[in-house]
Amino acid sequence: MSYKSDIEIAREAKKRPIQEIGDKLGIPTEHLLPFGHDKAKVSQNFINSVQSNDDGKLILVTAINPTPAGEGKTTTTVGLGDGLNRIGKKAMVCIREASLGPNFGMKGGAAGGGYAQIVPMEDMNLHFTGDFHAITSAHSLLSAMIDNHIYWGNELQIDERRVAWRRVVDMNDRALRDIVCSLGGVSNGFPRQTGYDITVASEVMAILCLSNNLEDLQRRLGDIIVAYTRERTPIYCRDIGADGAMTVLLKDAMQPNLVQTLENNPAFVHGGPFANIAHGCNSVIATKTAMKLVDYVVTEAGFGADLGAEKFMNIKCRKAGIAPSVVVLVATVRAMKMNGGVAKADLGEENVSAVEAGCPNLGRHIENLKSFGVPVVVAINHFVTDTDAEVQAVKDYVGEHGSEAIVSRHWELGSEGSEALARRVAEVADADVASFAPIYPDEMPLFEKIETIAKRIYRADEVLADKKIRQQLRDWEEAGYGNLPVCMAKTQYSFSTDPNLRGAPTGHSVPVREVRLSAGAGFIVVVCGEIMTMPGLPRQPAALTIGLNADGEIEGLF
Amino acid sequence: MSYKSDIEIAREAKKRPIQEIGDKLGIPTEHLLPFGHDKAKVSQNFINSVQSNDDGKLILVTAINPTPAGEGKTTTTVGLGDGLNRIGKKAMVCIREASLGPNFGMKGGAAGGGYAQIVPMEDMNLHFTGDFHAITSAHSLLSAMIDNHIYWGNELQIDERRVAWRRVVDMNDRALRDIVCSLGGVSNGFPRQTGYDITVASEVMAILCLSNNLEDLQRRLGDIIVAYTRERTPIYCRDIGADGAMTVLLKDAMQPNLVQTLENNPAFVHGGPFANIAHGCNSVIATKTAMKLVDYVVTEAGFGADLGAEKFMNIKCRKAGIAPSVVVLVATVRAMKMNGGVAKADLGEENVSAVEAGCPNLGRHIENLKSFGVPVVVAINHFVTDTDAEVQAVKDYVGEHGSEAIVSRHWELGSEGSEALARRVAEVADADVASFAPIYPDEMPLFEKIETIAKRIYRADEVLADKKIRQQLRDWEEAGYGNLPVCMAKTQYSFSTDPNLRGAPTGHSVPVREVRLSAGAGFIVVVCGEIMTMPGLPRQPAALTIGLNADGEIEGLF
Repeated sequence: MSYKSDIEIAREAKKRPIQEIGDKLGIPTEHLLPFGHDKAKVSQNFINSVQSNDDGKLILVTAINPTPAGEGKTTTTVGLGDGLNRIGKKAMVCIREASLGPNFGMKGGAAGGGYAQIVPMEDMNLHFTGDFHAITSAHSLLSAMIDNHIYWGNELQIDERRVAWRRVVDMNDRALRDIVCSLGGVSNGFPRQTGYDITVASEVMAILCLSNNLEDLQRRLGDIIVAYTRERTPIYCRDIGADGAMTVLLKDAMQPNLVQTLENNPAFVHGGPFANIAHGCNSVIATKTAMKLVDYVVTEAGFGADLGAEKFMNIKCRKAGIAPSVVVLVATVRAMKMNGGVAKADLGEENVSAVEAGCPNLGRHIENLKSFGVPVVVAINHFVTDTDAEVQAVKDYVGEHGSEAIVSRHWELGSEGSEALARRVAEVADADVASFAPIYPDEMPLFEKIETIAKRIYRADEVLADKKIRQQLRDWEEAGYGNLPVCMAKTQYSFSTDPNLRGAPTGHSVPVREVRLSAGAGFIVVVCGEIMTMPGLPRQPAALTIGLNADGEIEGLF
Repeated sequence: MSYKSDIEIAREAKKRPIQEIGDKLGIPTEHLLPFGHDKAKVSQNFINSVQSNDDGKLILVTAINPTPAGEGKTTTTVGLGDGLNRIGKKAMVCIREASLGPNFGMKGGAAGGGYAQIVPMEDMNLHFTGDFHAITSAHSLLSAMIDNHIYWGNELQIDERRVAWRRVVDMNDRALRDIVCSLGGVSNGFPRQTGYDITVASEVMAILCLSNNLEDLQRRLGDIIVAYTRERTPIYCRDIGADGAMTVLLKDAMQPNLVQTLENNPAFVHGGPFANIAHGCNSVIATKTAMKLVDYVVTEAGFGADLGAEKFMNIKCRKAGIAPSVVVLVATVRAMKMNGGVAKADLGEENVSAVEAGCPNLGRHIENLKSFGVPVVVAINHFVTDTDAEVQAVKDYVGEHGSEAIVSRHWELGSEGSEALARRVAEVADADVASFAPIYPDEMPLFEKIETIAKRIYRADEVLADKKIRQQLRDWEEAGYGNLPVCMAKTQYSFSTDPNLRGAPTGHSVPVREVRLSAGAGFIVVVCGEIMTMPGLPRQPAALTIGLNADGEIEGLF
């Protein structure tokens, strides 16, 4: 039996005009701002008008540590959203936007897969509604205004060596990682060393995704620390005077983007912060607006549950004042097998004992997620090669660990395949058994917050950090930043900081290489490994084969 | 009597839903791709479907050499379009898009002014439909792919010192004019000197604006010369393999943007190439599509007629195979006075003899425009301070020089004020008296093309160019570029290369400092003065006062 590719399925989608999708959410025409006929933004005024509505239930989809086998977290998010609609629930999906630049390196991806996708897929991999371009513009304006301030007399006494604000572009361009700017003489300013990150790594992106409204956005933008004086006094974006104009540039980008699933159910696709140096979730404004519009909001967090769900809980939920009613933990038989030591090439063969050997990774995540006070349902994202015995092994394991696993075939069958999962998830959500709380309080000292995550989530024995880093954390506490959550940046492939350590390791150490203050976004980034904020293109970039075919369709992007 | 500001008038606009404007042009809903409720793109398929329609008349609006008094070229373009609609003609306007970056330096501008404006003004000064962001992305992709090619082995043997393709950003950022990139060690590539221009100066912008369709676009993108080998062999964008992916990035940006005037008449606002290192007109695809949809298309060219109209005729019309039926030359009494030696502060006082003294600038332009074989109507864009005697002086002068001048009060009265102008322009267009031809043939040697423009349009005695420049032109002729038109880059303030030389100078020399080949756009840029391709922000940039007010309206942008 042969299966259609994601792009083939997406191109066959019977999309409904976006206003029809908006109608399902009660969004009047004047408040649904179309971008073409299949995308739209929801007006700020409409968002304001629904604030007194009751909140729907929030369902978080997360996953085990990713393996090259693929877990299908987004696919399950979309499939579950369609499944809920199928059983008569008013539900929608909230996921992140894709970054344009990387698509010219490796092939771009679908939002979901198989018969659980969000469309229009091509637009979402290109300019979409321009949000990321707006973020690049706002970031670039601040960059230009900092150097312009220095050029015209440097009244704030910025130390050119201590400009913390780099530049960004939504492109994989390694040549820009490290540059010297302002060369060429007096009229071009004071030469200094700086560099570019990719747009999704911009603090503006994290801020946009954590802001509750435009006022909050502007306040946070103003809070960005852009540079220091020789005396190490911080200079804020507000001092540069860029926060107002940046807010104007971001005004439209703050409005959530409405699109649809293959089954014509509504989805917000909005915001896309890095999952390492930022928190990796779609925007707060999209999630909170969705909760005002439907009874069940299905959303996802980046990477595996140790990073993504932890940040979703400790950063996004804490800051936005929201709480999940249930968490869906996505696993696959194939990924269990890889965790159990099977090589990728051998995944096609039945291997129950390898599945069993890999399950502890899943068990650890179940335990961790429960520690936030939320019930956990495991979704086994079914592959056509999975055998009954393998599936049963996962189910048995999960049952023994105080949870339940449900097979879902949304990839193959759409909502018909996810109905069982949807029924059970809705039941659990409706039971109101969650008593969500972040795993550390605001007032805990910063280093203890890091230790709490390392010990309770990663199951490490200790956190290693030199004196300078510990002193930096204490300095920030004294400066009034002690109440911020911490944003961990480590490998997604393991509970530990060693990407090759699969399963459920214990006894390891978490070395902290660096800490960074994102004062506007409102978190302390804790870097525990190599973090690449500007990718390069590969030897044979995807761009070489991307083009329009004779029918005007895009080839090579997927 | 006090007058409302442009922004006040624009905010009071009674905009109609954009589909209604599309209906006037016969564009079906499925082919009008909305961006919000007041902007839309016209689909490529619709454009293809109207190719067999008859062409409407093309009306070019140009102006005398600009003075600080302001001439109101765009205002007159919009006013004339509305006037034509008022007298029952099916007409539309085609103008350029504004660049985002400069608005954060100096305040942004209306498209038109008074009661002759195109709306939505705020969007047009911000992201609009994202065209310029798409151009920045396409340009950036090529930049990244060039350095990536060098990084992975440099098979094409690009000489890093001879990479001609710079980077661009849509921001006034002087710190980026001159940079060293690829610092930081082996994994970041080979350090080299480069820099940024503002997006509107990108050759991609010129290409987009001169392309007839997507195939033509891709071919021209492929033709861009991005670098040279040590042996001076040119390396093309096509060799880098970026042309297909760039076309994909520009696919939507190639579709003209439909908006409306204050009087709800249709307008295409599309493309915005520099008027010095490029040709300074809105896109060919917008102009040609408009000609298929209405009977009269009113468009404008950048700067004064010596630069803008010359390039419109010799570059845009030649390449697009279109021809104006009539040219409207905009003048103001105030500008005549300034040309006649009056200081800006004294413009409010009646001064007929100064008006008369300034008129030769106007006379020269009339003569030049006629040399292209097109009839000329002078529009006196009326200011409320103009006296009858002053207006009569202009009319008399124009009459004596074989043309006619018509006062137009569109700024104050909208189409009621431009009715007379519209009637006469339509009459002249309908008389089919134009016998348009560029003033030099394709096969003329490049240096002679420069001389032809300098002598026949600027009335210079000679063109000065050193041996190296003349040799470069001969080399390009040998390489097969001899048939290209030349794109003059000189001051807009004078017929000469001295910006202070007002009126109608003769006997001057035109020194050529540099020549550049834009092989994709298809012209040779002839630089005859300082050309700034990356502006800086002023000491007090407009961005400092830009922000949202309590009603969510944008303040400080205008």
